[in-house]
Amino acid sequence: MAKVVILGAGVMGTALSVPLTDNGHRVHLVGTHLDGDIIAKLQAGYPHPRLGIRVAESVTPCTHEQLSEAIEGADLVVLGVNSHGINWAAQALSPVLSPEIPILAVTKGLAGDGEKLYILPDALRAGLPAEYSQNVQIAAIGGPSIAQELAARRQTCVVFTGTNLALLKQLAELLRRPYYHVWTSTDIIGVEVCVALKNVYALAVGLVIGLLEKEGKAENGADMHNLAAAVFAQGMLETAYLVEQMGGKPQSIYSLPGAGDLYVTCQGGRNSHMGRLLGLGLPYSAAKTQYMPQDTIEGASLALAIGPTIEKMVKRGDLDGAALPLLLSMIAIVCHDQSVNIPWNEFFR
Amino acid sequence: MAKVVILGAGVMGTALSVPLTDNGHRVHLVGTHLDGDIIAKLQAGYPHPRLGIRVAESVTPCTHEQLSEAIEGADLVVLGVNSHGINWAAQALSPVLSPEIPILAVTKGLAGDGEKLYILPDALRAGLPAEYSQNVQIAAIGGPSIAQELAARRQTCVVFTGTNLALLKQLAELLRRPYYHVWTSTDIIGVEVCVALKNVYALAVGLVIGLLEKEGKAENGADMHNLAAAVFAQGMLETAYLVEQMGGKPQSIYSLPGAGDLYVTCQGGRNSHMGRLLGLGLPYSAAKTQYMPQDTIEGASLALAIGPTIEKMVKRGDLDGAALPLLLSMIAIVCHDQSVNIPWNEFFR
Repeated sequence: MAKVVILGAGVMGTALSVPLTDNGHRVHLVGTHLDGDIIAKLQAGYPHPRLGIRVAESVTPCTHEQLSEAIEGADLVVLGVNSHGINWAAQALSPVLSPEIPILAVTKGLAGDGEKLYILPDALRAGLPAEYSQNVQIAAIGGPSIAQELAARRQTCVVFTGTNLALLKQLAELLRRPYYHVWTSTDIIGVEVCVALKNVYALAVGLVIGLLEKEGKAENGADMHNLAAAVFAQGMLETAYLVEQMGGKPQSIYSLPGAGDLYVTCQGGRNSHMGRLLGLGLPYSAAKTQYMPQDTIEGASLALAIGPTIEKMVKRGDLDGAALPLLLSMIAIVCHDQSVNIPWNEFFR
Repeated sequence: MAKVVILGAGVMGTALSVPLTDNGHRVHLVGTHLDGDIIAKLQAGYPHPRLGIRVAESVTPCTHEQLSEAIEGADLVVLGVNSHGINWAAQALSPVLSPEIPILAVTKGLAGDGEKLYILPDALRAGLPAEYSQNVQIAAIGGPSIAQELAARRQTCVVFTGTNLALLKQLAELLRRPYYHVWTSTDIIGVEVCVALKNVYALAVGLVIGLLEKEGKAENGADMHNLAAAVFAQGMLETAYLVEQMGGKPQSIYSLPGAGDLYVTCQGGRNSHMGRLLGLGLPYSAAKTQYMPQDTIEGASLALAIGPTIEKMVKRGDLDGAALPLLLSMIAIVCHDQSVNIPWNEFFR
């Protein structure tokens, strides 16, 4: 039996308590500064408001003020925050983390500093105290995993990635269940780039929902699946390009982290909702403020986080803009409020 | 202005008359021996019964008895038959085709002779008269293209593939429209393998619709998108393996023919409908006879066409069965009426 701290009581963090407790582990589910209401509800025995399940008895919901106590004797920290929470998490963990406790992150995203792109495990590491940050083992989860389905114990296939294969196998043992199938991959760059980019490309596929709604079905009943599929394919191709540029491996692209995760993210959720609004013709800033002010839209967050860096890298020639027309178009839409204009003629170079 | 013969008046063959006539070409739409009713309707000025559109005035609908007359002076034959029609088409064309008329095929499939797998252009060529079969230029179309959408002039992106790049560019010029975006690729093996396999993997993704319907939504409202996405990803991975084994290129996998065409085929259609029936628990033979007796289900047709060859190649060690658990499982379901049993533990090797 292990003691596991899950930091972040959003849907994905909380869902991971299910396979952990089913395997007999004790879990401290520690909310962030934004999770106060959720933790209060869970402590009072109510279901998680967005996940729709009650946590197991072996889950102790705590507030972030209790992190130091919760982490004592922990064998693992699962990082369940979203991409906006990485810096907060690094700060919260810094005073209390021992370097021998490994971290397993579900956070998806990339960071950019104007010069270069970074995978999130590296961004997290950079936020930890210099005296031990290089010694902390950081692994991550990628693959198609809608939290509500995992929480309901529905078949879910994921990849644990990191540089230490022995650790990955150990973590997989902790979480593997008959409904939670875990593979391991040491291609942390490939996996992380795929699972981050899928959000912005799912936003792009979502545009088609709005375009269709605006235009309506054709007289013969035709929708716009061809268009959605072409955008999907271009997303895969651009993902392949960026994986290669950043030093990842092609296998990650056409398996769970790439194809699988992009597919599942196109089946609905906040990226699709925002995509629809953009496809209907709203500028991003108006759509965000008017319709989704409280929501984290990971595809848009990614465009905002890496947009300026990508644009500079293209300008400097460090990246080939001709290989990234859809990403550049999504950056223009999200970062510069440009209207939707799918750059067909630049696709599939 | 070119003269084009489209052989096969099904939805895809007929839909291709739209970009052709929009470009000012004359089209003879020649029905197969099974298309009598469709041709009669089109000749009488009615819409195509399944495509929901009237053909342009510059389209001359003909019966297959008129093929010899129609093909006189033709610049191109578009082959619009389905995979079951390839032998019929080769026989019909043999007495009337001149070797200088190129063929552009929309037919998707693979053939197997117990020893080896063949792409359909090679199977078609093998059915043409030996004295000129090697001189006929055969190109093919791949990519996400639902016929009804193309017929309604909705944005569609495809790849023309073949070994002669100059011909491909010429064909692309004939068909390209502001709504019909055509790329060219000389990776005919990669494209053809991708677009054939997508049917059987879409059938596999379709299983999940039936599994979900049987099990229902979870208490928290969860569906089964994670499962569908994992099956999708395994399909992509197996496609990559077979493309590589047959000598195709990886680019075809993560662009229009692979990712794009699999994505669009999972959005509905006959493969999905049959997948649902199988997922609900019906044996394939019963599902086919009782519910879809008149329908060509390309995923099942492919399993039947290549199943015995694949099984023999795996047995002989010419293919690695561990790389193809989902395909072998679909072959077992379709060819041997086995029940659905998704082989999780063999995925992602």
